[in-house]
Amino acid sequence: MSRKPNSEQRRAQIVQALRDTMAEHGYDKATVQLVARRAGLTPGLLHYHFHSKGEILLALVNALAAAAHARYLVFAQDAADADARLGAYIEARLGLGEGADASAVAAWVVIGAEAVRQPEVRLAYQQALAAESMLARELLSASLAAHGKSTANVAALAAALLAMMEGSFQLASAAPACMPMGYAAPLATGMVRRFIDAEPPEAA
Amino acid sequence: MSRKPNSEQRRAQIVQALRDTMAEHGYDKATVQLVARRAGLTPGLLHYHFHSKGEILLALVNALAAAAHARYLVFAQDAADADARLGAYIEARLGLGEGADASAVAAWVVIGAEAVRQPEVRLAYQQALAAESMLARELLSASLAAHGKSTANVAALAAALLAMMEGSFQLASAAPACMPMGYAAPLATGMVRRFIDAEPPEAA
Repeated sequence: MSRKPNSEQRRAQIVQALRDTMAEHGYDKATVQLVARRAGLTPGLLHYHFHSKGEILLALVNALAAAAHARYLVFAQDAADADARLGAYIEARLGLGEGADASAVAAWVVIGAEAVRQPEVRLAYQQALAAESMLARELLSASLAAHGKSTANVAALAAALLAMMEGSFQLASAAPACMPMGYAAPLATGMVRRFIDAEPPEAA
Repeated sequence: MSRKPNSEQRRAQIVQALRDTMAEHGYDKATVQLVARRAGLTPGLLHYHFHSKGEILLALVNALAAAAHARYLVFAQDAADADARLGAYIEARLGLGEGADASAVAAWVVIGAEAVRQPEVRLAYQQALAAESMLARELLSASLAAHGKSTANVAALAAALLAMMEGSFQLASAAPACMPMGYAAPLATGMVRRFIDAEPPEAA
């Protein structure tokens, strides 16, 4: 399909409208009608850009994942070694520095829960998590190797880090008293570092 | 209000019907009508036991929290010291032993996400999390103290443990490939233990 020059901008506008509508009403109630209204477009124009709500959702999951990855790349650009890159990754995901976005986090939590019961959301969520898990394993492996530690537990450690991240988003969005501002990143970094420090050495 | 002899049983039936209906359809779509049908009762009889859906939800959150606590008490009954009690707590929450219940976990994840955008769900969720946080802090403080470690970071450590638990429920329900069966409890226990081991000593 050939796109008009402003097509990417329109699509981004629609994706953001789904994000904000979902954060407020959930996925079920975020009808194409409501999303179009929020984007300031007619439903017809929305349908010109996306065939279905599921397609907008996939674009949203991809956009959130891409934004998180871009944030990591910015944080990691001055990282001199594997430990610094791992720290930059955790800080980029959990830190409250430049670019943190409460409504993106809330949308992510809603996507995670909708993934429990809606197959099309689950698929998109699982793909994003699989990519996340692969990156976490790479960064953890590099840090373990840099310290001469065994990487035998890296898959489990990546799972724990992912769980801590998903749980921190959940608590920050729904029970902030349990996860005060600024706790999550240093805590996750500290737990991962202490876990790595106590790992056995790589077998020769 | 005086209750008929089978009143508690009826209430439990209704609460479980909300749990299963929510896990399938979310909170919005879990109408009193649907919940009554699932419980095998008329809406009128449901209303005799609960004034509103919000009231059933509160009972559900309390029932899930009570079941989790009962499970901890069973796991902890033979625990000889503070470390064993902490381990029993984590195992009771995250382990796949006796009494683990996938649909309770899925219902909890749905409640957590609905808490992001629905004030009445948020309140119930936050109360449950606050109680959870208090218990985690008690158990972590006791373990830190038993090892002569400073308890200065106990609130942050409790927050990290809660985040790991909530995130593990999320991953186990929606992206099990990222959190294979049996990973969560030993990992969380290992991370907490290594964190505690590396804490500075309690100032004299």
